[in-house]
Amino acid sequence: MKDLRELQHIISEAVERLELPDAPVELYEPVRYILSLGGKRMRPALLLMASDLFGGDITAALSPALAIEVFHNFTLVHDDIMDNAPLRRGKATLHERWGRNAGILSGDVMLVLAYQLLAKAESRLLGPVLEVFSKTAVGVCEGQQLDMDFEKRATVHIDEYLEMIRLKTSVLLGGALKIGALLGGASQQDAEHLYSFGEHLGIAFQLQDDILDVYGDPEKFGKQVGGDIMANKKTFLLIKALELADWGQASELKDWLGPDNANSDEKVNAITQLYNDLKVREYAEREMETHAEKAFKALDEISLPPQHKQYLKNFADGLLVREN
Amino acid sequence: MKDLRELQHIISEAVERLELPDAPVELYEPVRYILSLGGKRMRPALLLMASDLFGGDITAALSPALAIEVFHNFTLVHDDIMDNAPLRRGKATLHERWGRNAGILSGDVMLVLAYQLLAKAESRLLGPVLEVFSKTAVGVCEGQQLDMDFEKRATVHIDEYLEMIRLKTSVLLGGALKIGALLGGASQQDAEHLYSFGEHLGIAFQLQDDILDVYGDPEKFGKQVGGDIMANKKTFLLIKALELADWGQASELKDWLGPDNANSDEKVNAITQLYNDLKVREYAEREMETHAEKAFKALDEISLPPQHKQYLKNFADGLLVREN
Repeated sequence: MKDLRELQHIISEAVERLELPDAPVELYEPVRYILSLGGKRMRPALLLMASDLFGGDITAALSPALAIEVFHNFTLVHDDIMDNAPLRRGKATLHERWGRNAGILSGDVMLVLAYQLLAKAESRLLGPVLEVFSKTAVGVCEGQQLDMDFEKRATVHIDEYLEMIRLKTSVLLGGALKIGALLGGASQQDAEHLYSFGEHLGIAFQLQDDILDVYGDPEKFGKQVGGDIMANKKTFLLIKALELADWGQASELKDWLGPDNANSDEKVNAITQLYNDLKVREYAEREMETHAEKAFKALDEISLPPQHKQYLKNFADGLLVREN
Repeated sequence: MKDLRELQHIISEAVERLELPDAPVELYEPVRYILSLGGKRMRPALLLMASDLFGGDITAALSPALAIEVFHNFTLVHDDIMDNAPLRRGKATLHERWGRNAGILSGDVMLVLAYQLLAKAESRLLGPVLEVFSKTAVGVCEGQQLDMDFEKRATVHIDEYLEMIRLKTSVLLGGALKIGALLGGASQQDAEHLYSFGEHLGIAFQLQDDILDVYGDPEKFGKQVGGDIMANKKTFLLIKALELADWGQASELKDWLGPDNANSDEKVNAITQLYNDLKVREYAEREMETHAEKAFKALDEISLPPQHKQYLKNFADGLLVREN
């Protein structure tokens, strides 16, 4: 069995070796650029891990794993256009550097490239693997659509938010693990459990991210603390706060979210205070815990020896810091 | 055997019956819209025809045929964004009606949907069919990239232009026919010949389109005669004219292409006169004829009874009007 770090390394090297056509340069240079920006290569590494744990051949799973990574980067390219994001991993986004049209078209060819990589899976497994992949891809598109819709809406229900993060971030984690399991020869049932593990873990991780944005240790948290508050991002905390607030609190909250309020430490402090008063952190932690438990329960159901499952447990424990 | 019109009708009805998820409404309503705008449904009908001619089951080929149509519409949606086009088939383009982001994301989900439809092909044929489809899709992206590149470039060589139209329009025709042939049980060789037939026919058709834009009968030609000239579009005629022009003619041509010249009948007349002087129409017709001959030669090579091939000949004859 290989551990996650080894698998991430295998993926990083394979991404570097990935052969793309030379021409048209304007189409493929942006693809090379976005793939070279790095990232943790977590999703494809987990695909390899799932395959490995069920006795699959890592080499045979490499192309489908790369498909997941190329697909993930395709979503980043198109999402960055839609979000008007100037930076990705500290570098200029693709559309910032080559223009919006290049971003659209290079993204498109990446999605096709992902399918080409996926199609290298053993032909016996091609049908089931394709099915999971396409279903995952549709889910990610739906999640992005919901995310954009929510930005424009005055109110979003907590259940809608949870469904959005499930689609936008969790199904790809679940899909990568399930594809790996299928490639490794897992039963349909075990593959489903592994999907469920990834899905709930992804939701728990996103909720943790919402919490850490406000309550995280600035030293440990990679991003600016309070960033979501400044951006008026509809996180679990904000949605729950708007749900629980009395008339006075709601009015105060909406004032801070209004256009007259510049982003400031004062805004972050005031909204954090409201979050504290309304105990939304506890709600978020409870929800996160619920999904973490569901993830571990799904893991328990899988018919693998405990020492194999330990690799997935370690991954989950690393992902969910639970510093409190 | 069914004729093209019957097959187009089958496709139109199947597109209407196509089941899409209801939510998120903002994602799928634009997809329904673009698919409802109609069009001749030529490519998917040809896929069915190819399958039918080789003895395949039309019902079994229907989902892959729809995949071709959904893919084609995906390219229209994204191309229209890149070209800033306000109209498509006389109606508002998708991005004009729902915004650029909706255009990007609904296009993305259509590409995935196309793969989902394709994946319904008989599992034994899934690998080969996927391979043709993805290769075709990559070609179409490359063609669109070249088309955008050429707009910015001062000079384009005729060979580059032919390669661009091959990729942008012909490979999809060839790909649709080849997938149909594979589904119908054709040999690899026959499938290749049919691909070649579609590819060369597509190039001939595009060249005819370039010619008709200038020399077509306004009554018969669907578009505004002279439209390409007004838009300074680098067609076969313009590229050839720039190649053949002497110093004086080149200077006159470039004057007309310059920013000071409003689009006018005068411009269309002057450039048409230059085309006449340089006999570029004859060059274009000769090139078109070459590709038409290659298409018919490929058709000859196919091991089907003549009465079966007649359906494809009829299609080609209908496509290439050759009014002169």
